[in-house]
Amino acid sequence: MSETDAVALTADLIRCPSVTPEEGGALALLETVLSGAGFACTRVDRGGVANLYARWGAKGHAKTFGFNGHTDVVPVGDAAAWSRAPFGAEIVDGVLYGRGATDMKSGVAAFAAAAVDFVSTTPPEGAVVLAITGDEEGDATDGTVALLDWMEANGEAMSACLVGEPTCPERMGEMMKIGRRGSMSAWFTVKGVQGHSAYPHRARNPVAAMARLMDRLASHPLDSGTEHFDASTLAVVTMDTGNPATNVIPAECRGTVNIRFNDAHTGAKLTDWLRAEADRVQDEFGVSVEMRVKISGESFLTPPGALSDLVGAAVKAETGIDPVLSTTGGTSDARFIKAHCPVVEFGLVGQTMHQVDERVEVEQIRQLKRIYGRILADYFG
Amino acid sequence: MSETDAVALTADLIRCPSVTPEEGGALALLETVLSGAGFACTRVDRGGVANLYARWGAKGHAKTFGFNGHTDVVPVGDAAAWSRAPFGAEIVDGVLYGRGATDMKSGVAAFAAAAVDFVSTTPPEGAVVLAITGDEEGDATDGTVALLDWMEANGEAMSACLVGEPTCPERMGEMMKIGRRGSMSAWFTVKGVQGHSAYPHRARNPVAAMARLMDRLASHPLDSGTEHFDASTLAVVTMDTGNPATNVIPAECRGTVNIRFNDAHTGAKLTDWLRAEADRVQDEFGVSVEMRVKISGESFLTPPGALSDLVGAAVKAETGIDPVLSTTGGTSDARFIKAHCPVVEFGLVGQTMHQVDERVEVEQIRQLKRIYGRILADYFG
Repeated sequence: MSETDAVALTADLIRCPSVTPEEGGALALLETVLSGAGFACTRVDRGGVANLYARWGAKGHAKTFGFNGHTDVVPVGDAAAWSRAPFGAEIVDGVLYGRGATDMKSGVAAFAAAAVDFVSTTPPEGAVVLAITGDEEGDATDGTVALLDWMEANGEAMSACLVGEPTCPERMGEMMKIGRRGSMSAWFTVKGVQGHSAYPHRARNPVAAMARLMDRLASHPLDSGTEHFDASTLAVVTMDTGNPATNVIPAECRGTVNIRFNDAHTGAKLTDWLRAEADRVQDEFGVSVEMRVKISGESFLTPPGALSDLVGAAVKAETGIDPVLSTTGGTSDARFIKAHCPVVEFGLVGQTMHQVDERVEVEQIRQLKRIYGRILADYFG
Repeated sequence: MSETDAVALTADLIRCPSVTPEEGGALALLETVLSGAGFACTRVDRGGVANLYARWGAKGHAKTFGFNGHTDVVPVGDAAAWSRAPFGAEIVDGVLYGRGATDMKSGVAAFAAAAVDFVSTTPPEGAVVLAITGDEEGDATDGTVALLDWMEANGEAMSACLVGEPTCPERMGEMMKIGRRGSMSAWFTVKGVQGHSAYPHRARNPVAAMARLMDRLASHPLDSGTEHFDASTLAVVTMDTGNPATNVIPAECRGTVNIRFNDAHTGAKLTDWLRAEADRVQDEFGVSVEMRVKISGESFLTPPGALSDLVGAAVKAETGIDPVLSTTGGTSDARFIKAHCPVVEFGLVGQTMHQVDERVEVEQIRQLKRIYGRILADYFG
């Protein structure tokens, strides 16, 4: 039996224009490939989003290795700026071009190909699951969460899970992720009392109050990092007033901060801190400060252990590199999976993700398939 | 000979729609009134702005009392919000309504009426001058400055000058002005390096730098006042970024401050201070800070003396109130006159200036005319 070609499968997936929330034929293609290898496939669509659940082996088996990934992609952007057709999947000098080439049709294809070959050649004692969503780049409310909800309701579970997002900054194999910082944003509106610039004591200046608040928030070190996490960060991303008149102190000023926080914090405690700082400025300037907070995700961690050892060893065996166990980066769907089973992330080099001319070396896809195949073999070995 | 009716003249002036830079017939009307009393009138128009110079008596006389005022008015604003026609000059219950009723057609009319009566009944040994501009509410580049330029070029001068702007906060007679604080604005643009909110150390955040700069500027006490001046003030009037994305640190942020400064400062020294603070933030944040400064006027003072004594005594005689010698308020055309001769400002209550339903008690106009008449009599007496 011939090996499944992960490069050809990546190219086929790229040719499916699956910009969130469009399925674009990508999940249908995967379903065909996986069904052909004996995977039981279920479409778990919700809220206008397509998701695919595929299982080889017995339902509810205590040893069920899961893979999570997505086939949706971000928009093309300025199509004229691409040197290759964004959905053309052209291969030039060993490099495959197209939207989703790194994020993350290559990862999905590599695992699907590895899994098909694995269950066909060495059927394991246990189950292999692929939970693939079409809503990772969007709101992510009806994607991996929908799959996990459906699994729970239907007695499906994973004993360990690998997320195939690109994780390597520059060189294949150098980094895996065992957690992520949390992310939250806070929108502030400072309301003061309008007045003439010549008589600031008769006004309550919301702009000056905002400057004080934002400087304090940005200057406050949240922590200096924890055992597995970098230091938490706060970025002031905008302050806006819209007052063109130099002789007028305006009535209102708006500002926004974004916080990436490690396991020394929770979204709720940070919200309390933000509110306390807002209150302090309220008192100092005699203004009122309204605050709206959105916590996109709490920080999470799968502590170094069996799963990270397994993945690390496979990476080392195929690339010669010991991957760093990192918790850097933005959020990923691993934040949802963490509540169900140990989860780590490993994928290829993500440098061109979301960019014009997104592309991947085809050799990296083959290497990634070999790593994923080795992880499966070792997990069940 | 009957007295000149200052109330009727004010009403006639209000009926001239002289919104800057329109002359609206106001200066033509004044010219008719003054010419009829023997004033030599010259239109000193420049840059599309109309100005009127009127002199009774010998040119270049060592004792020449001058009056400065303006007939232009600010726009009506929301005409529908007015309860009386803005250019209707209706008198209801002893109150005269209309744009310019307080700022400052009443002041111009009161002085013109007083001067006409004075030179007609008791011709002085000396000269009386009215330098009336149609460009005080606008850029003021071709108004009083044009009149002063023309006077200098033509051997005309004043030995003392009274500016008739409204000066009383609430009660007629309570305040005259012997100087004004200076005014300047500074526009800052902080340029950083755009980046992802999750990795602030890879970006250079111009918004955080702006917050620091603005908080420092606003928190710094410039002084605690001087002998004749209130404390200088700095107001942050706007900060703007326009970044809607919470996951992006933007490349640029803009901010503006307005400073009102007393005689402890000069515009140049304050500019140096602003630049030094901008430099400090540049170093701290690794950003670049561009700064543009406009000095609208330096602070100026006519120290208490003969002129303020003269005006104060006249006010006291007519109102029973000793006027405070103040330097509060925004800029006025007195800042230009200061370079030529002693100048003080006295006018009526300015509460409704620039507002909807601008209005004045007709009795205040009559009282103001009596005060101005007494000033003339005492000056030449």
